[in-house]
Amino acid sequence: MGGKSTLKDLAKILNLSVSTVSKAINNSPEISDVTKDKVRSIALLNNYSPNKLAQSLKSQRTKTIGVIIPDVLMTFFAMAIHGIEQTANSYGYKVIICLSNESLEKEAESINTLVNGSVDGLIMSLSKETQSTNDYAHFEEAIRYNTPIVLFDRTSDLLICDKIKIDDTLAAKEATEHLLKIGCRNIIFLTTIYGTSVGEKRRLGYLQAIENTGVEDTIINIKDYAQFECILIEALKQGKIDGIVAADELSAISTIKYSIKHSYKIPEDISVIGFTNGVLGENFVPSLTVVDQHATMQGSLAAETLIKRLEKKIPVEPVHKVLKTSIIERESTLPLFYAK
Amino acid sequence: MGGKSTLKDLAKILNLSVSTVSKAINNSPEISDVTKDKVRSIALLNNYSPNKLAQSLKSQRTKTIGVIIPDVLMTFFAMAIHGIEQTANSYGYKVIICLSNESLEKEAESINTLVNGSVDGLIMSLSKETQSTNDYAHFEEAIRYNTPIVLFDRTSDLLICDKIKIDDTLAAKEATEHLLKIGCRNIIFLTTIYGTSVGEKRRLGYLQAIENTGVEDTIINIKDYAQFECILIEALKQGKIDGIVAADELSAISTIKYSIKHSYKIPEDISVIGFTNGVLGENFVPSLTVVDQHATMQGSLAAETLIKRLEKKIPVEPVHKVLKTSIIERESTLPLFYAK
Repeated sequence: MGGKSTLKDLAKILNLSVSTVSKAINNSPEISDVTKDKVRSIALLNNYSPNKLAQSLKSQRTKTIGVIIPDVLMTFFAMAIHGIEQTANSYGYKVIICLSNESLEKEAESINTLVNGSVDGLIMSLSKETQSTNDYAHFEEAIRYNTPIVLFDRTSDLLICDKIKIDDTLAAKEATEHLLKIGCRNIIFLTTIYGTSVGEKRRLGYLQAIENTGVEDTIINIKDYAQFECILIEALKQGKIDGIVAADELSAISTIKYSIKHSYKIPEDISVIGFTNGVLGENFVPSLTVVDQHATMQGSLAAETLIKRLEKKIPVEPVHKVLKTSIIERESTLPLFYAK
Repeated sequence: MGGKSTLKDLAKILNLSVSTVSKAINNSPEISDVTKDKVRSIALLNNYSPNKLAQSLKSQRTKTIGVIIPDVLMTFFAMAIHGIEQTANSYGYKVIICLSNESLEKEAESINTLVNGSVDGLIMSLSKETQSTNDYAHFEEAIRYNTPIVLFDRTSDLLICDKIKIDDTLAAKEATEHLLKIGCRNIIFLTTIYGTSVGEKRRLGYLQAIENTGVEDTIINIKDYAQFECILIEALKQGKIDGIVAADELSAISTIKYSIKHSYKIPEDISVIGFTNGVLGENFVPSLTVVDQHATMQGSLAAETLIKRLEKKIPVEPVHKVLKTSIIERESTLPLFYAK
């Protein structure tokens, strides 16, 4: 055989399954020493990705964590990376980051780039496309290389691995209940992240909160920021809206900005609550009341879980950690004692 | 020899310089074929990083670009990454990102992680510590592997490579002249990025603009955001400040926020201009007048330059591109026709 062999080639020669060959090369306890030796000799003979093999034989670690996130321009993910970096560095691990740009194909490409010897494990938040198509075939490479994965924020029940997230449904329910508590009676849910698991769960939480309260549900889904002002103001004109739950930070800020522009008073006329505790909402005037998803903490916990997994310091059962969110009250919602 | 050999080991055996050995392995046209063959045989015999050697022999490319930036929470860098991604992908290249967190040591670590076979070339913006110590010894690995580097934004004259940047001195001069033009006579320069090349150059530009205008120079250097409000308001009380040039986006927004809090009117009392055309300044009320450094364009040009360098489509002389900045007038400065 001339060039490099693949796992498939080796499996064919050995008359074994790809999975068995992979496990043998990765020194899995499921495989007998006899089979391991056979596989390794054939792998060496057939020039199977020699560096990778050498690595696995020495069980050499790169002490590097790969991170794949959808977008670096979203504050939440930038903050999560910050948390991942801090914790990884404190354990002596390095971090390399790839972006999926919300695309399944780019996510797949990033997985293949990273698991191919560069990193010991992956921390990921799924792309919009992956979540909406529910297609996880591109995780095959990571599974083949036995690369541990920790999912955070945007996770999936179809992938069996460690997961760190918040309860988005509960968080949105609490945000909506906060508006109910301060006296809002016409509350709309506004989202620009339709199609993601978190966007969908937040919508559900909003619906759960207003169920049986007599408040009618109105969901505004804005796909293009160019139409934000027009769609929002049209909605404000139709009902006497006094409360808005916005599914992310920028849409909450845009809501306030355009409402003020059209002479609505925030929070006197409309109380606005958003998601993500970032610089944008913190520094805005009026400052934004937000659901804090503890982005940095999510990143930090994801890194800690992955490192413990790599160092076999946690049980084999997947870790499923659900962080409690909190509401940070600021100027964009009426204070509780103001309740109408 | 037991383990893997280093270039140094090979050089010793061959009685050649490390640089010659490196060039031979990397197939440099400066080295004769005879020497190349000799070096390669010795390298193979002595188990010199076999994968690397195999790669160079086949001149195999990873088609991956490594990016090292100081901080992902700064909008400018997040936008630059966006530009790098777009352009790299359009050329069929992947991107992996490492952060230096403004530390020389982490920058060094990132270089070593990436040049070690993962990437074909590097795009970097230097860390604060690297720039203030002017120590570039940690670029040795990249040079040894003949890894092309493109610096952007925070560059250095001491590194001979492709560079994409703006003229920070001119940009700050123009920003200050803009304030002079609208009638400001007590202009301060406010910075939180002291110690970086860009921070220093912007300070110089401010000084150049007010030279011979009779305006006194006042430079406020804030190291800790916790003291921002206190230091700013103290300065505003002392002189009749009517213009502020802030060296970055967040400090400009903070300036406006605290000025308004202390009953100063923006722009009627004080005109504020900042750097970076990001979501924060665009969405703030009043919206921020900024110097647009064309972050996305800088990233995009850096990627294009690196790819052309890798594919030998540009002359060997280093590319030095200086982008023209522009001022985006918004609500935080008096309009020109208001000029007092």
